[in-house]
Amino acid sequence: MVCSIEISEKPQLNNPILIEGLPGIGFVANIAALHLITELKAKKFAEIVSSSFQDFAVLTETGSARSPINELYYVKREGGCRDLIIWYGNTQALTTPGQYELCGKVLDIVQEFGCRFVVSIGGYKKDEVKGLPSLYCAATDLTTLKESLDLGTKIMAGHIFGIAGILIGLSKLRGVRGFALLADTMGMYPDVNATKQVLKALGKYLNLQVDVSTVDAAADQTKKMLESFGLIRNIQEEKKKEEQQLRWFI
Amino acid sequence: MVCSIEISEKPQLNNPILIEGLPGIGFVANIAALHLITELKAKKFAEIVSSSFQDFAVLTETGSARSPINELYYVKREGGCRDLIIWYGNTQALTTPGQYELCGKVLDIVQEFGCRFVVSIGGYKKDEVKGLPSLYCAATDLTTLKESLDLGTKIMAGHIFGIAGILIGLSKLRGVRGFALLADTMGMYPDVNATKQVLKALGKYLNLQVDVSTVDAAADQTKKMLESFGLIRNIQEEKKKEEQQLRWFI
Amino acid sequence: MVCSIEISEKPQLNNPILIEGLPGIGFVANIAALHLITELKAKKFAEIVSSSFQDFAVLTETGSARSPINELYYVKREGGCRDLIIWYGNTQALTTPGQYELCGKVLDIVQEFGCRFVVSIGGYKKDEVKGLPSLYCAATDLTTLKESLDLGTKIMAGHIFGIAGILIGLSKLRGVRGFALLADTMGMYPDVNATKQVLKALGKYLNLQVDVSTVDAAADQTKKMLESFGLIRNIQEEKKKEEQQLRWFI
Amino acid sequence: MVCSIEISEKPQLNNPILIEGLPGIGFVANIAALHLITELKAKKFAEIVSSSFQDFAVLTETGSARSPINELYYVKREGGCRDLIIWYGNTQALTTPGQYELCGKVLDIVQEFGCRFVVSIGGYKKDEVKGLPSLYCAATDLTTLKESLDLGTKIMAGHIFGIAGILIGLSKLRGVRGFALLADTMGMYPDVNATKQVLKALGKYLNLQVDVSTVDAAADQTKKMLESFGLIRNIQEEKKKEEQQLRWFI
Repeated sequence: MVCSIEISEKPQLNNPILIEGLPGIGFVANIAALHLITELKAKKFAEIVSSSFQDFAVLTETGSARSPINELYYVKREGGCRDLIIWYGNTQALTTPGQYELCGKVLDIVQEFGCRFVVSIGGYKKDEVKGLPSLYCAATDLTTLKESLDLGTKIMAGHIFGIAGILIGLSKLRGVRGFALLADTMGMYPDVNATKQVLKALGKYLNLQVDVSTVDAAADQTKKMLESFGLIRNIQEEKKKEEQQLRWFI
Repeated sequence: MVCSIEISEKPQLNNPILIEGLPGIGFVANIAALHLITELKAKKFAEIVSSSFQDFAVLTETGSARSPINELYYVKREGGCRDLIIWYGNTQALTTPGQYELCGKVLDIVQEFGCRFVVSIGGYKKDEVKGLPSLYCAATDLTTLKESLDLGTKIMAGHIFGIAGILIGLSKLRGVRGFALLADTMGMYPDVNATKQVLKALGKYLNLQVDVSTVDAAADQTKKMLESFGLIRNIQEEKKKEEQQLRWFI
Repeated sequence: MVCSIEISEKPQLNNPILIEGLPGIGFVANIAALHLITELKAKKFAEIVSSSFQDFAVLTETGSARSPINELYYVKREGGCRDLIIWYGNTQALTTPGQYELCGKVLDIVQEFGCRFVVSIGGYKKDEVKGLPSLYCAATDLTTLKESLDLGTKIMAGHIFGIAGILIGLSKLRGVRGFALLADTMGMYPDVNATKQVLKALGKYLNLQVDVSTVDAAADQTKKMLESFGLIRNIQEEKKKEEQQLRWFI
Repeated sequence: MVCSIEISEKPQLNNPILIEGLPGIGFVANIAALHLITELKAKKFAEIVSSSFQDFAVLTETGSARSPINELYYVKREGGCRDLIIWYGNTQALTTPGQYELCGKVLDIVQEFGCRFVVSIGGYKKDEVKGLPSLYCAATDLTTLKESLDLGTKIMAGHIFGIAGILIGLSKLRGVRGFALLADTMGMYPDVNATKQVLKALGKYLNLQVDVSTVDAAADQTKKMLESFGLIRNIQEEKKKEEQQLRWFI
């Protein structure tokens, strides 16, 4: 397993917070990250390709090649606010070891830039979502848990699959604090409503002025990306995932 | 494949014995290890996360995240008794190469702390267990075998799957001595009776005063952990495992 | 995953262009590369064996063993023309991580020899091909795209699977420019017509005098190689490949 | 993927020849190697455990643990004869990358001890074997091929699967010469007759006086090992293997 990393700039960052925004349930994290990148004029400083990404390139209508990739952006902020690092991409890794290594590499990079706090975003899959999507949280420690509950979230019970879950686990192991922020979603399309709720809570936590009225643009762009990658919504796959168990020999 | 290791303390240990206690058949090793950690007030000094663990985090009722992890604890003892290292965790690795690397890493660590003797614990699956569960052993060498037979065990015939088996094999290769201690169990629930028998024999070997009357507490805690991980008892899986063969081209 | 590399000669090359020619759809790249190696009297300077190749040897009628292998050849040219590196082989890697590592290793090697431009060749699978096969392109950047469109190609839309796609993706990440050149093919046999179209466009781009009338010899040799490896045309497999998706948790 | 290697002795060897003897079709190589080890009083100098071996230990009737392992033995010879290295074991690696790495590691070791020539042994599976089993060969080069044909072998056509095939391929890449020696076998049991033919040819090549009348003892020991590992003869698996193809995108 190999991660190729290209760091194009080494920004000086003020106690930055990492926000994870890879494609996941309802594409909540992915849309939120893209919206923040656009709104906050975040600047790309690192690209990561893992050997556990897909082995193909996708061609856009303009003939340029688009490959499975992860990217890191930074946002410098004024008035003593903590800076941000946004982890964006068009895929997670295909295998479990690939997921761990990708997450470990990103933590290596952001810790080098002084990051000691992470927020992972996700969708919390429900069969039905009525009214405003609820928010849920989980945290590396009790202090952080309290902070995230103060954003109007409930305590989540169950599993957080994929990078969002690994990020919290590996961060804890490294003494990096953080929380996961999840919104109710049916999870089968890029979910604007769930993303708005997440962005509101995140804005409150980060003391950010985020215009959520324009989230639809980020959702549209995400949809186009999905189409270019020929996505078939595979609900079966997620079901299988839910059934995955720890390896016990009973 | 990557193992992230965090060593939080470097204790001076007196000729320590490693006791393996990962989840396995009947959870005998897992309960026994947890009981010893509690009873002997063992102190955690190392955490290990492997990229071949599960890629999710589990959320507890209190909102804190619990990830697949392995841990090493130490127990310092008085009166010239050999110290102990207890290998505890909530999972084994998901793949065979992952199992070997995890076991190799743990041996690397404990050998650094002077360990030259290992005990792996396990359940020996039976369709029916009547009366007191019997104990079985297997050893890296004849001297050690004799010592373990003196504990009232019988010679085991057959396979020891998973970490318990690999640990004996890799130890032998490294010139580390040790034995496996297994108890009859139906293997389908955290088995208190089997664990008690193992702990009695282990206590005899280690010259430990272990109160086995309180093993139920450790079994309960193990049960809760299982529930939080959403365990479905998968007897099929073990059957498949039994059918796994060496790779011969016949 | 391990790549064994043997570099038998270190040629001084003038700003060389890498031409990828591994077996793929319609064997277009494979035949084209073999034809160029023969016509231009290319000289082998590197051999690569990956641990993700097949684990067998194939025996030829003459009793010599032929193993899965990749090779690099160079062509030195006169009159200030850029030199060429041709990447030839009898297989791609069996796994996605293997593909990435193989491609990364080859890029490592050719970048060491001063290569900053790559051309990957491929077939574009169609159910039916009438008249002259059309050519398609995709590029790492707009300047290169324009250059490849000037060769009479159309912009390709969709996926480029395997090494041809990864090469464009990884090159872009490393700041290496290049384009993919694909020809319509039904893809089920070594396709001479598609290869001729590709070679004509490539010859134009590289300012090469290539005699395409003798491409049949390279196609025959490729066919024989297929037969010695006992190839069964597996159209199912490619279908499965087309259905492969990015890993999203929806 | 990790190989743990323990080298217990560093013998001075005279231009040694490596003889591969892992379990394979008809167990021809395995029995032959065991017989040579016994007859020639070969001395073990290295043990290898790969993380792509099986993750279990097997317990013998005497309570000692037997793990999946590979071993290297040496034989020093008099009268200017070339020394021998015998590669023995109870398994091959479970995965293709594991096979390559194991084979590469063994070549690393034996090349360190001056080995520049290898012989891989195997069975050539037939539906029926009448009379004396025929011998077949394949070689890294024409000179070696001629030498092996002089032993009364025929040229083999087709595939050599597993370590026997990889060894010839990787050796060729490293400039190490050698040949594969295969005997007709139905492949479904430890085949004494096939092994005898191989040993006679090998004895001729190596100028060895091998008593083949006692091969049955080695075959019996191999049978017992099979039984202790609980072998189920899996003819299906080999069939699947035969259908494995190079990875081409057609």
